[in-house]
Amino acid sequence: MSKTQLEHARSGTITAAMERVADREQVESETIREAVASGDAVIPANPSHESLDPIVIGREFSTKVNANIGTSSLSDDLGAERDKLQTALDYGADTVMDLSTEGPLDKIRKDHIARSPIPIGTVPIYAAATTVDSHTELTQNQLLTEIESQARQGVDYMTIHAGLLKEHLSYADDRLTGIVSRGGSILAAWMDEHDAENPLYTAYDDICQILREHDVTISLGDGLRPGSIADAGDAAQYAELDVLGELTTRAKEHGVQVMIEGPGHMTFDQIADDVKRQQEICDGAPYYVLGPVVTDIAPGYDHITSAIGGTEAARAGAAMLCYVTPAEHLGLPDESDVREGIIAARIAAHAADIATGTPHDWDNALSSARASFNWPRQFELAIDSERARDGFKSDDSDDDQSESTQQRFCSMCGVEYCSMRIDQDRKDTTESDTSADITAIQDSDAPHQNLPDISEEIDFSSCPAHIP
Amino acid sequence: MSKTQLEHARSGTITAAMERVADREQVESETIREAVASGDAVIPANPSHESLDPIVIGREFSTKVNANIGTSSLSDDLGAERDKLQTALDYGADTVMDLSTEGPLDKIRKDHIARSPIPIGTVPIYAAATTVDSHTELTQNQLLTEIESQARQGVDYMTIHAGLLKEHLSYADDRLTGIVSRGGSILAAWMDEHDAENPLYTAYDDICQILREHDVTISLGDGLRPGSIADAGDAAQYAELDVLGELTTRAKEHGVQVMIEGPGHMTFDQIADDVKRQQEICDGAPYYVLGPVVTDIAPGYDHITSAIGGTEAARAGAAMLCYVTPAEHLGLPDESDVREGIIAARIAAHAADIATGTPHDWDNALSSARASFNWPRQFELAIDSERARDGFKSDDSDDDQSESTQQRFCSMCGVEYCSMRIDQDRKDTTESDTSADITAIQDSDAPHQNLPDISEEIDFSSCPAHIP
Repeated sequence: MSKTQLEHARSGTITAAMERVADREQVESETIREAVASGDAVIPANPSHESLDPIVIGREFSTKVNANIGTSSLSDDLGAERDKLQTALDYGADTVMDLSTEGPLDKIRKDHIARSPIPIGTVPIYAAATTVDSHTELTQNQLLTEIESQARQGVDYMTIHAGLLKEHLSYADDRLTGIVSRGGSILAAWMDEHDAENPLYTAYDDICQILREHDVTISLGDGLRPGSIADAGDAAQYAELDVLGELTTRAKEHGVQVMIEGPGHMTFDQIADDVKRQQEICDGAPYYVLGPVVTDIAPGYDHITSAIGGTEAARAGAAMLCYVTPAEHLGLPDESDVREGIIAARIAAHAADIATGTPHDWDNALSSARASFNWPRQFELAIDSERARDGFKSDDSDDDQSESTQQRFCSMCGVEYCSMRIDQDRKDTTESDTSADITAIQDSDAPHQNLPDISEEIDFSSCPAHIP
Repeated sequence: MSKTQLEHARSGTITAAMERVADREQVESETIREAVASGDAVIPANPSHESLDPIVIGREFSTKVNANIGTSSLSDDLGAERDKLQTALDYGADTVMDLSTEGPLDKIRKDHIARSPIPIGTVPIYAAATTVDSHTELTQNQLLTEIESQARQGVDYMTIHAGLLKEHLSYADDRLTGIVSRGGSILAAWMDEHDAENPLYTAYDDICQILREHDVTISLGDGLRPGSIADAGDAAQYAELDVLGELTTRAKEHGVQVMIEGPGHMTFDQIADDVKRQQEICDGAPYYVLGPVVTDIAPGYDHITSAIGGTEAARAGAAMLCYVTPAEHLGLPDESDVREGIIAARIAAHAADIATGTPHDWDNALSSARASFNWPRQFELAIDSERARDGFKSDDSDDDQSESTQQRFCSMCGVEYCSMRIDQDRKDTTESDTSADITAIQDSDAPHQNLPDISEEIDFSSCPAHIP
């Protein structure tokens, strides 16, 4: 039986996947091996996912972004899901979770695995639940069967809500928004109906054996995550987290790679403490947070509320951000929502990375292009080139782009009030003692005093994923 | 000669404006008086601005949001500016700055003052600069004349870039993006051309006398704010801040209310230290920050990069956030950009407020409506009702809204997988021992177990501005 990345790392072996992610992160492969061996990082890489180009998830490495896609009863089309996967890839998601609950689930999942170079995650209880009339009819055996089936298909990581125990349910009784995790609510209903413990908890060792065999990373779900600011940091949330700490240890004993899912809704000041607490309780296992959403008042803008929370979470040590789209709390995201959600989360991830020591070469390259009025290069370097190009407003809408993109100003200030243009002309005047024509169009690629040579292109080829 | 709010506060008088803002902030009027007297807060309220409903700006009070509007050489239409002002009011800006540089400047400014119930700010050097062929032809007298003229018109606060000194210019020579403040770049060119000190600095006492007479709050501009992450926190930025500290003291001696403008571009980790430094150097004067933008890589999304930075700045003590729109770095914002910018900044302001002790009643009310599937009430309470309503995706696009907005789920999960619906039905089942029909549509206004009574409307009438 082959070993998991965790087992290889423990035995001192540097795998091809470790070499690859070391290259992407620009660190020594031994650094990766040590982080995987200690459980501080995971490489979700099911050997059956043949098209995978692996990534590493851990607080020491670049912050990753996950995009949730999937059908619901209102949209179960394979073609639409393919488009959403492609959108996620195009805009730079690091992983995708297929959360489908309707339609040809196996077909959609296999299709994604075959097409996707990024890790695919799932929540197997969803597919299992579609096989029964009522969620409470689910059997433990059906859950295990579904988990094994998906592991064989090549799923790289799975959310397993094993930490939500029967004794926790009463803690959520007085909540404003109750249980807002789909898996959590299904399991709560099941436990109540059967007056029995969470079947994912009681079968945890069996689950770990299946996941170990296929090197599926377990993503321990937070079925009791708060669904509102009012419920953040309550007894329910932290009772479950304590169990997740115990389950982290047990998964590692099985040789299974582990990450931990986190909230959800929290005020901005609660986030750092929450990350610290998770890191302590779960012995440094990568924290994979949803948002966090820092206020409840902004339906339609929850990509922004979560970009705020995600930046603070990643700065404090979260390893991966699950995107939240503008459709959150309102409906199933479409392709446009997927794009907005991914870019917002990637902004948060990058903002946190450069706030915690990653060199801001990318920022410098873009600002250098900005200072030299090299508009095409700015668009090229922008996190969303198309959006930047579309947003550019030249002085004259009749200009063709090749002309307007050479101008030394934009419509915000116009040429007479463009601060950078004024300032550069001042310095040119001072230095050359000749008067500059303030309306002249310079060759945007000309080297400029006090600016790095733009022709010295920064080499992004070996950078982490998604730096253009 | 009438007294300024600062002078009244010092002499122990509680003005009508203080009473009004105390009511809006739900604090004692004496608390306002003390904060104004110490200079920790300002009430920009020019007595000639007759339509004004005053606000207070200070770190102890709710974080305010400013929207910049105004013409440039590419758009100088009064009608368009009226529409932008109305958009700013509709979406809840607390103040507006008219940064026009083209068109009928006095007419536009007077029109805004006549129409606007919120404070109007300006940067008088812009209008002064339009009277000369080249910025460097400006005279000190022209600047003073323009300041006095605008003060008489009723402008409530003015950005004066008096802290940028000739000796600072060399500090900006090695910057990646030079001087990015319009006022800063004009003054730098002027100082170089005339080999003389900043005319706003040398005339500072005269300026303060004019502002004092009309109780115009001075907003000390940061002409050397960084325009890129590479330039953040450099010698230029902090040399100017030291002078702003000196100018704060001098303005207060004149009886003039003072606030301080701040960056700009900064990494997320630099923000709290920057705010702390400003508060120390400027003796607690309100900090009014632009963004901050926490990464340079996202043109087209700078309302998001600045919402991230703005939340952290306000949490750390900034008193007002200047919005940044999606058009930033690309062109002049249109009405749509103004809306996006205001909402993003208001999200940041609110997220910071509830992270620093403001009760999250508004969040609770919206989450309560969410938990009871009261969709109309959710839309009503949303920070942008129209956006929330437009974003709502029902199960069936053929449904009319009155029907779909009664449903106990949205298209994200569909009815079978709606966690809140599942969880509420579970509790209903447990408590009533009768089986609930999971697809039943409840009266959304019915009181629900474990949820506050939605019919108990929260009284927002006395809340700070813009809580619906």
